[in-house]
Amino acid sequence: MKTYLDCYPCFVRQALEAARYAGATQAQQRQVLDQVLDLLRQTEDGLTPPAIGDRVHGVVRRVTRAGDPYHALKQQATREALALYPRLKALVRESKDPLDTALRLSIAGNIIDLGPAPKYDLWEVVERVLEQPFAIDDQDELRDALRSGTDSALLLGDNAGETVFDRVLVEFLNQVHDLQIVYAAKGGPSLNDATLEDARAAGLDRVASLIHNGADAPGTILARCSPAFRKAFDTAPLILAKGQANYECLSDLGCEIYFLLQCKCPVIAADVGVPQGSTVLARR
Amino acid sequence: MKTYLDCYPCFVRQALEAARYAGATQAQQRQVLDQVLDLLRQTEDGLTPPAIGDRVHGVVRRVTRAGDPYHALKQQATREALALYPRLKALVRESKDPLDTALRLSIAGNIIDLGPAPKYDLWEVVERVLEQPFAIDDQDELRDALRSGTDSALLLGDNAGETVFDRVLVEFLNQVHDLQIVYAAKGGPSLNDATLEDARAAGLDRVASLIHNGADAPGTILARCSPAFRKAFDTAPLILAKGQANYECLSDLGCEIYFLLQCKCPVIAADVGVPQGSTVLARR
Repeated sequence: MKTYLDCYPCFVRQALEAARYAGATQAQQRQVLDQVLDLLRQTEDGLTPPAIGDRVHGVVRRVTRAGDPYHALKQQATREALALYPRLKALVRESKDPLDTALRLSIAGNIIDLGPAPKYDLWEVVERVLEQPFAIDDQDELRDALRSGTDSALLLGDNAGETVFDRVLVEFLNQVHDLQIVYAAKGGPSLNDATLEDARAAGLDRVASLIHNGADAPGTILARCSPAFRKAFDTAPLILAKGQANYECLSDLGCEIYFLLQCKCPVIAADVGVPQGSTVLARR
Repeated sequence: MKTYLDCYPCFVRQALEAARYAGATQAQQRQVLDQVLDLLRQTEDGLTPPAIGDRVHGVVRRVTRAGDPYHALKQQATREALALYPRLKALVRESKDPLDTALRLSIAGNIIDLGPAPKYDLWEVVERVLEQPFAIDDQDELRDALRSGTDSALLLGDNAGETVFDRVLVEFLNQVHDLQIVYAAKGGPSLNDATLEDARAAGLDRVASLIHNGADAPGTILARCSPAFRKAFDTAPLILAKGQANYECLSDLGCEIYFLLQCKCPVIAADVGVPQGSTVLARR
């Protein structure tokens, strides 16, 4: 997805928020603001929003000298999600259509996203996403792919905490569809995106082959990813990508990817072609 | 009020919105964005948000060559408010405390503000503001001032459409308190602020001495106002100021002003010291 002009106010807002998460002083916040205004003025055309966001959050990390401003928030999100884990498992177990439920839960977990909107009630979102009709639903195509003998899939993770919801999906795909999942975390801290540490805290290492993409950037900016990850990406028989930033990075790539996301941001919703707040499972 | 760092994302958002209201092409919107980023990077310390907003909207008018991007919206807002005028008059007439009702209605009209949040349901806001307790209520002090023999007051207007709600207050103060009102509109277009034309369309010329402040800027930036307005301001025995921008411009001035506003913006609400969404009648 291209960067729209409406993304710019949001970059400035996110930079200030991230600086505060990192405990920045008032003077540091001003420094972040000034450097981000300069950076935004100088961005070349053709970058995706996560590619610009990557630079914005780089400024925050440099100015605040905080290695991982969202570290505590990520741990808390994982703890909160793990507390729901038994209820999530029960929902899948008791569902008439457990694949649909597992997919919806993984998408529900995508609300744990401190980029666009920091406030949410987790269980309320779970209940909404279980009921709400998909705005785009390419589940039939995904079911065909699962039935076609594919034995492994690459799941591009998104946020810490959301990882627990993904684990429920991974376990279902393992057990029922005999699908081996390679779960890709981030190579380093960026926003509240899950790193290897966060993915392990959610127990994903016990149910998937855990890899990282080599980049401390939001989404999956292929040019920033490691050769090892690129190989996993290029050879994966099936790719599932979680969240807005992965959509923003990969939607125009031309290779087949199933995007699982909640369209929280009005700009992304318009690009996907659905109302804001939609639940989306889209093959692109 | 000083400009907080959180005002900066809002300046960028407002600039894009204003450019679109002015019918800007995509290229013009990009030009507005670039020039506003430059401008924000170069603002000196100590400016109020409306003083920066003034420059931002100046960029929009220069790039789009639109004299008054909000012209049609202002006319529409005035028409919609005039359609409610008989109901507003009836509310005051039938009220047990007609001054309280007239003040609340004038504050309710302050929702017609395309700066912070462009969407609202006008009658819903009227009903809310009539019921909602004031977060700050210096009405007793204002009643004392009205009883003390003051025979005139300067009312600093805010937005087009809101003018109709102000007219209801002006008429009540005229008739019941025998108070002559000098109503100050803006000297030229800025956002959806009321100019002389907008104030006349609301019928304010029939019930008040209508003046303009000489500036095409939001709020009341005294340094930008005409000598004639400055004289009216300096000699007014009583000043009522409508809306957020007037609060932002004048709250730290040290002279006695009654501010009537809805705190729509979280930053202003925090500065006033009330929750966002509050109804405020504050003497400062």
